[in-house]
Parts: sequence; C-alpha cells; structure tokens
Amino acid sequence: MALWIRFERADGEYVGMLDAPTGRIAVHAGDPWAAPSPTGEVVQLDAVRLLAPLRPGKFIGLWNNFHALAVKLGAAIPAEPLYFLKAPGSILAPGGAITPPAGYAGRIAYEGELGIVIGRQCRNVTQAEAETAIFGYTGVNDVTALDILNADPAFPQWARAKSCDTFGPCGPAIATGLDWSALRIRTLLNGRERQNYPASDMILPPARIVSLISREMTLEPGDLIACGTSVGVLPMRPGMTVDVAIDGIGTLRNTVAERAP
Amino acid sequence: MALWIRFERADGEYVGMLDAPTGRIAVHAGDPWAAPSPTGEVVQLDAVRLLAPLRPGKFIGLWNNFHALAVKLGAAIPAEPLYFLKAPGSILAPGGAITPPAGYAGRIAYEGELGIVIGRQCRNVTQAEAETAIFGYTGVNDVTALDILNADPAFPQWARAKSCDTFGPCGPAIATGLDWSALRIRTLLNGRERQNYPASDMILPPARIVSLISREMTLEPGDLIACGTSVGVLPMRPGMTVDVAIDGIGTLRNTVAERAP
Repeated sequence: MALWIRFERADGEYVGMLDAPTGRIAVHAGDPWAAPSPTGEVVQLDAVRLLAPLRPGKFIGLWNNFHALAVKLGAAIPAEPLYFLKAPGSILAPGGAITPPAGYAGRIAYEGELGIVIGRQCRNVTQAEAETAIFGYTGVNDVTALDILNADPAFPQWARAKSCDTFGPCGPAIATGLDWSALRIRTLLNGRERQNYPASDMILPPARIVSLISREMTLEPGDLIACGTSVGVLPMRPGMTVDVAIDGIGTLRNTVAERAP
Repeated sequence: MALWIRFERADGEYVGMLDAPTGRIAVHAGDPWAAPSPTGEVVQLDAVRLLAPLRPGKFIGLWNNFHALAVKLGAAIPAEPLYFLKAPGSILAPGGAITPPAGYAGRIAYEGELGIVIGRQCRNVTQAEAETAIFGYTGVNDVTALDILNADPAFPQWARAKSCDTFGPCGPAIATGLDWSALRIRTLLNGRERQNYPASDMILPPARIVSLISREMTLEPGDLIACGTSVGVLPMRPGMTVDVAIDGIGTLRNTVAERAP
C-alpha cells in the first residue's frame, strides 16, 4: 500500500509518496505508475501545495453504476458501462474552488465517486488482465451543471455539463493496494454527510469496467475512470465546502465559488 | 496560406510545411501553431508516411450544426453548440484503416466534417478573439458505431460510439489562411460522392463555436473541433475506401478493415 500525490512549491511540480501519519513526503521522479525513483528528498505536507494526483489523458465517467441509485431512478441494470467523457482540463486540485462558468446561473451538483487510475496500456484486455492494469484508486467529485445537461430536449449534453473548468476535483491521493470492495464513499456538504455508500454496491466492478471499455477504446497509463455515484446528490451553492472522503485515500475538500466573471 | 503536416520515417516523427504542387516538405521543429522554425531539411512527400497532422488534447464533435441536416432530421436550430467529446486516442492517420472494435458486428458510418484547429488558449473569449485564436482547418471523418449510439434506451452513448480506436481520421493537412465559408466538404465512398455540402450552411460558424465553448471549457492549442456533418451519411463495409475531400486542405483517404480480433 502506498499513497501517491502531486504537489507544487516555488521551484516546480513534484510527485511524492506520502506517509499519512507523519505528513512526510518522499519526493519521486516520474509518474507514480511508471516505477518512479525516489530522489532522496523528503518534504513536509504542510510546506507544499497539493495538486491533483494525476493529469489524465482521458477522464471517463460512468452513469448508472450503483444498484441503490438505479432503483431510485427506476433505471435498468446495465450490462455494459454507460459512460461520458469529461474534459481532462476540468481536473481540479484538492483545495481548489469549483467555479460555475461565466454566464451560467443554474444549479451545480456534486457527485462523490471512486476513481480508477490506469497503470498500464489496456487494449481489449480480459477482466483478469484489467485487474493487474489498475494502478490504484483516488477520489473524484464529478461536478455537473444540472441545467445544462437537459437544456436541449433532443441532445443530452453530458460532455458539456461535466467538462466545465474546475468540475473535476480529484484526489487527494492515489492509493495502491486497496481492496476497493471494502471502501465507502462519503460526501459531506458544509460538514454534513450527504452521501455514504459502499463501493460494493457497484453494478460493474472496476476490472470489469476496464475490460469492457478497453474492447473499443485503448486505455493509457494515467487515464482516470470515475465509477459513477449513488444516492444523495444535491446542488451546491457558492461559499459551500464539499468533501469526498474515502478511507485509505483521504478527504478531497473543495469550496464552491461565485461564478466566473 | 500554409499546409502543415506531420509525418514519420525510420528515424522519428516530424512536423513539416508542405508545398502541394511539388510535394516538397520543409521540415520544422515545434508544433505548427507555436511558431515552429524550419530545420533547413527538405524531404519529398512520397518518401515519408503521413501521420495525423495533430494529436489533440481535446477532440470535440458537434451535433446538428448544418441547416440541411437539421431540416432532414426535423431538429430545432440550436442557439449553442451541441457537442460530445471523442477520445483523442481515436485519431487515425491519413491512409490508416478504420477498424471496428472486437466484438462489435454492427454498422459504422462516416461523417465528413471540417475541423477547427485551435492555435491559442481560449478562456471565455469573444467571437472576435476566437477568430484570431483559430490556427487553421483540417478534414475529419467522425466515424460512429451506429448500433452503440442508441443501444441503451436511457442513455445515448455518444462518447462511446465515437471514441473507438481508429474512429477519428484526421488530415491530411492543417491549412492556414483559408476562407472557411467558401469551402465544400465532400465525402466519397469507394470513389462515389456521397456528401457534398457547403461549409457556409453551418448553423454556428467556427468563431462562434469557439467563443461559446470557451465560456465553460478552456480550449488549448492543438485542440480539435469537428464542426458537425450534413446530409449523406451512410454506413461503411470492410474493404471500402472513404475520402473526405476539402479543396485547400486535401483528401483524407482511409480504408475500412474487418473488425479487430
């Protein structure tokens, strides 16, 4: 088990392995999934600014992948992953401000989710191969502009509603060696718990998602797949704080800002 | 006016400026939109293998952006771009084989389109600013797995149907200094013309598309926006050749292969 982070300080951006109890970061060179080497330097967590732990080439998000939410929505249980693409530029660091876009006065909602981080290229892989190609897991807040999603009756705007700048908070760390099926995903709005659901309620488990997606679209190291959310999604208002907390990964805390000028 | 290409030969990948009448390529260092410098080397087009002229960080595709197709579909004229994201990995070089994914025996269709290549970062830009941020235009074949798109009645799978490996042929060149409104987009299947429509029939013109998208999602240099298609889309079968021909840009020719093993 390891916790991988990215951080910046005055002289640049770095990858590090975090020792959570002490806050000590062993600086490494290279991407976490590419066998990075320790540089020998150790810094303290409170001396740096966390970045999102990865910059995915592809950021995939699943819809309708939890039994409890499917029941609530009256949605059929899908046999294959139903997904949209989020723009990679939507990624937001822990601590960053979720900022509704200029000109958008509608509602925005959080969705606390477990994120799969791909460690090896996957092209038409089996579920067993996918298992070993998953590098680790992180937290994702799959923020959505609710009033964009269905603004056009003929064309549901998943990509647009999900891809606004700052709509992809991610982190705080990538955890390796976790048993995903034992995790709970909790989302807190201004400290009040609004989502608390077991990852084991997933319809398609991570390795199955990776295997099925990879039949059509090659997955690359550093790609990120948000596994979908469950019940308890609510809109957020400016000034609020939103936490996506997953034991073993940490708490991804972001604030909500007034909309962009 | 210039024609920018990317090519490979035994010793690596290169950017070049093509003189179409003579087939001479002036090799350059750096991305076409980043003021690349000529290396002094000149090679002949027939001595190299063309690559797609760019590797976009984001590959955006519009739906319902031509009046003629909107009439045919009975679709309302949209006031804003209706778009999906294609995975950047779907990009295919001129000459490459469009290959249906393993396990998919359904129909695949071509869509000949004009592609906008972004030259400068755009964040909430005006239409006038967007005009100057457009580096040039290229050809796009926005290939679609028709039987994936609506396979699930509750969730139209735009991202998945459009993002299969090889489903984003692009090129053969990026042309700068073109008057987009004078262009015609022609698509030929086995040499027979199936699409021939004027770019001027576009509902939202390129600079308006860029301006509106940039209100929510920052566009980066090298991002690619396919402007949507018009009437004449048909399925393709293995063994067929498909050309997207745009005067001033060139002919993007691809073949259709049997599905992946």
